[in-house]
Amino acid sequence: MFFLPKPVSKLIDAFERLPGIGPKTAQRLTFYLLHVPQEYLENFAEALNNLKRQTMTCSVCFNVSEADPCLICASPSRNKALICVVEQPLDILSLERTGKFAGVYHVLNGAINPLNNIGPDEIRIHELVKRVQDPASEIREIILATNPNMEGEATAMYIVKQIQNAKIKNQNESGNIRITRLAHGLPMGADIEYADEITLTRALEGRREF
Amino acid sequence: MFFLPKPVSKLIDAFERLPGIGPKTAQRLTFYLLHVPQEYLENFAEALNNLKRQTMTCSVCFNVSEADPCLICASPSRNKALICVVEQPLDILSLERTGKFAGVYHVLNGAINPLNNIGPDEIRIHELVKRVQDPASEIREIILATNPNMEGEATAMYIVKQIQNAKIKNQNESGNIRITRLAHGLPMGADIEYADEITLTRALEGRREF
Repeated sequence: MFFLPKPVSKLIDAFERLPGIGPKTAQRLTFYLLHVPQEYLENFAEALNNLKRQTMTCSVCFNVSEADPCLICASPSRNKALICVVEQPLDILSLERTGKFAGVYHVLNGAINPLNNIGPDEIRIHELVKRVQDPASEIREIILATNPNMEGEATAMYIVKQIQNAKIKNQNESGNIRITRLAHGLPMGADIEYADEITLTRALEGRREF
Repeated sequence: MFFLPKPVSKLIDAFERLPGIGPKTAQRLTFYLLHVPQEYLENFAEALNNLKRQTMTCSVCFNVSEADPCLICASPSRNKALICVVEQPLDILSLERTGKFAGVYHVLNGAINPLNNIGPDEIRIHELVKRVQDPASEIREIILATNPNMEGEATAMYIVKQIQNAKIKNQNESGNIRITRLAHGLPMGADIEYADEITLTRALEGRREF
C-alpha cells in the first residue's frame, strides 16, 4: 500500500477484515486513531485480547458468558420451564431489553442455510433436543425466536419436527410441551400503506380480538 | 448493559467511540469477533498498541511516518521545489495513488474552522511559511490541495496571504513562488445533468482549449 508506514497499514488490514468495513472506512478509522490518547488504544487492545480469553460458552444455553452456567441459567428467578430458542447471543440482548421474558434461552449459533453449508448438525439443535429429553428438565414451552426469513423459518420447522419426534421417546409422557413462535405482523410505528404482502397476510392471519 | 459479560461490553464500548460506529454496529462487530481465531484478535490488539508507538510525525512535512524525515521527504527522486499542501495524511494517500505527483507534501492537520475552534494557529500554517522562508529551500511552487469546501477554501485563501506576506520579507527575492490550486470542475464519470451549479460554474470558468 504505497509508502504507508507498516504500523498504520497493519491496523488498516485488521479493520478491513471486520464485516461491513471496507478499505476506505478502515483507513478513516486508523487515521482517526492516530489522534486519540495512547491509553484508549491500549484499553481497546486489552479488550480485544481478553474478549475470548475471559468469556466462555454457557454449557446449558450456549450464550456468551463469564461463568458457566451463565447468569441467566444460574438465576433462581428465571423460569426454567420456558425456553426461548434464538439464533445468536445478540438476539438475547434484544429480548432482554423488552424486560418481558422471564424464561431461559437456547442459542443455536446460526440457522440452517444449505447455501452456506450450514446443516442441522452445524447448529445446536441436537443439544436443544437433549435438553428437552433430559428427565430432570421441566420444560413446558419452547418459544422459537429464529429470524422471520427463509433460513430462520426452515430452522424453526426442523426444530418442531425434532422436538415432536423426541417427545415420543421421552419417558416423561405426562406433560405435553407447547411449541410456539413469535407473532408475525405489522411492526409498531409502521404504515399499512407501505407494508409488504407477506407481512400484511401474517397480520391478517394473526388478528386478535380486542 | 443488562447481563452482557464485561469483556464483551468493554469491547463494544471501545468500538462505539470510533467515528461512524453506532451502538448496533459496535455490538455486531464485537459478537463477530467472538468467532474469529484468537490469533487475529491478538494481531489486531498488537496493531492498536503499536500504531502510535511505532510511528512519528515527519518534522519536515508532518506526515505520519516510521522515520524522520519520512520516506517522501528523504527520497532523492522527489522534487523539493514543489510542495503540495494537504489537510490530512489520508489526502497524501489519494494523491500518491495517481502516481502523477513527484514533489513533496505539507500536512496541515486540519483546516481553519472557527465553528470548531480551529484557527490558523491550530494547524501547521506557520510551519509552512517557515519552510518557504527558509533560505536553504528552493521552493518554486506551492499547490494548495485543501478540500473544496468552506473550510478548505478559507484555509487556502489564508495561506495565500501568509505566503505573499512572507515572500516580501524573504531574502531570496530573485525567485517568485507560484501558488496554485487543484482544478475544480466536473468529476470524471459524472453527468452534466446532475451537476450542481457551483461545480458547473467552476467547470465553465476553468475551461481549457483542446
